Amino acid sequence: MLNVKQMKSLFKATFIFFFLIILSANKIFAQDLNKIHKVVMQLNSADTSAWSGVIGNIRNFQKIWPGKVEIEVVVHGKALNFLVASKSHLSADIEIMTKKGIVFNACENTMNKYGIKKDMLINSAGSVPSGVAELVLKQEEGWSYLKTGF
Amino acid sequence: MLNVKQMKSLFKATFIFFFLIILSANKIFAQDLNKIHKVVMQLNSADTSAWSGVIGNIRNFQKIWPGKVEIEVVVHGKALNFLVASKSHLSADIEIMTKKGIVFNACENTMNKYGIKKDMLINSAGSVPSGVAELVLKQEEGWSYLKTGF
Amino acid sequence: MLNVKQMKSLFKATFIFFFLIILSANKIFAQDLNKIHKVVMQLNSADTSAWSGVIGNIRNFQKIWPGKVEIEVVVHGKALNFLVASKSHLSADIEIMTKKGIVFNACENTMNKYGIKKDMLINSAGSVPSGVAELVLKQEEGWSYLKTGF
Repeated sequence: MLNVKQMKSLFKATFIFFFLIILSANKIFAQDLNKIHKVVMQLNSADTSAWSGVIGNIRNFQKIWPGKVEIEVVVHGKALNFLVASKSHLSADIEIMTKKGIVFNACENTMNKYGIKKDMLINSAGSVPSGVAELVLKQEEGWSYLKTGF
Repeated sequence: MLNVKQMKSLFKATFIFFFLIILSANKIFAQDLNKIHKVVMQLNSADTSAWSGVIGNIRNFQKIWPGKVEIEVVVHGKALNFLVASKSHLSADIEIMTKKGIVFNACENTMNKYGIKKDMLINSAGSVPSGVAELVLKQEEGWSYLKTGF
Repeated sequence: MLNVKQMKSLFKATFIFFFLIILSANKIFAQDLNKIHKVVMQLNSADTSAWSGVIGNIRNFQKIWPGKVEIEVVVHGKALNFLVASKSHLSADIEIMTKKGIVFNACENTMNKYGIKKDMLINSAGSVPSGVAELVLKQEEGWSYLKTGF
């Protein structure tokens, strides 16, 4: 039989235990409560009107959710030149957007395939080992996914 | 030291507390238990065979999940004419589908860009401030996302 | 009034109850902890360079996540021939990948539309009643979604 003192300890332990559960649960709910929208955009088209479309989409997001949207553009396959300094017609826009926190990442698999080195990319562009894997990782972290192009 | 009466109150409070947690948890599980499938489709292609494809996809969903699927089609960019009364070859299908609960929303950013007013849209079509933001909001609410086009 | 024995039973019941809640919660967290990435890819393009792209994407996933990625390719609409034995130029790759656990499913709606019987598909290919419904079901189960094509 437990005495009242033991019971009180048991109560305390129970509370601490469930408090930890609730903390974890909050982590789940955070997604809904958090005002920061997170979007990962896939760009793999050679069509330069799709490239301009990405810039337009980003402006659109920034207009409707100023300061409340995190955007990563994953560039791979036939779209790689979008981030190649000597090939992209959108370097200036990309540099400005990067300063405002937009992330542009080239796929290193694609870079290897086309012989593009990191120093050939637009200065502010980053890279990821695999573009498609990055798109999956972001979705796994709860980011919304947008396929660009038409 | 707590007497037995105080302990009973403590028990009650504990139960009410966790009952609320469980209610919240159920909100998470609802997604799995809920028989209503929710799909947000993105249409931004000028290709009218992609437009017909959307109508085909919707019929497909309704056939396999009769009365158990919620569908919203977000129309933006080069696809806007899909919802412009004087331009769309699919007005009749869209009107019928809207009566069955399908939602068709034009992007107001795109409408402004092309000078399309709300009264120029197919009667039953709606609009949203930003097409891409709508696609993100729906995903945040747990809707599945489909990019249409090829 | 409860005696101490009754209280102990109450405690036990409470613990069992919350233990079950925690088990369910773990099911939610599993998604994050589970090292197996799950990707459903949509292929509906007639462009055979998009078909080769799918094969490339799969190799990419297998390289970066060896043994830790589950992939299902849903083939429908204009891409059906990707899985039709007499039409696909990628049969050999598809057969090998299937042996390594990649799943290729043709849409039966599309098969009916084009008069393709199951025995006309590549041997290792499967089928699903509706391609678009399959894409939604997988997303509902927490799989990441990738639209292939450009």
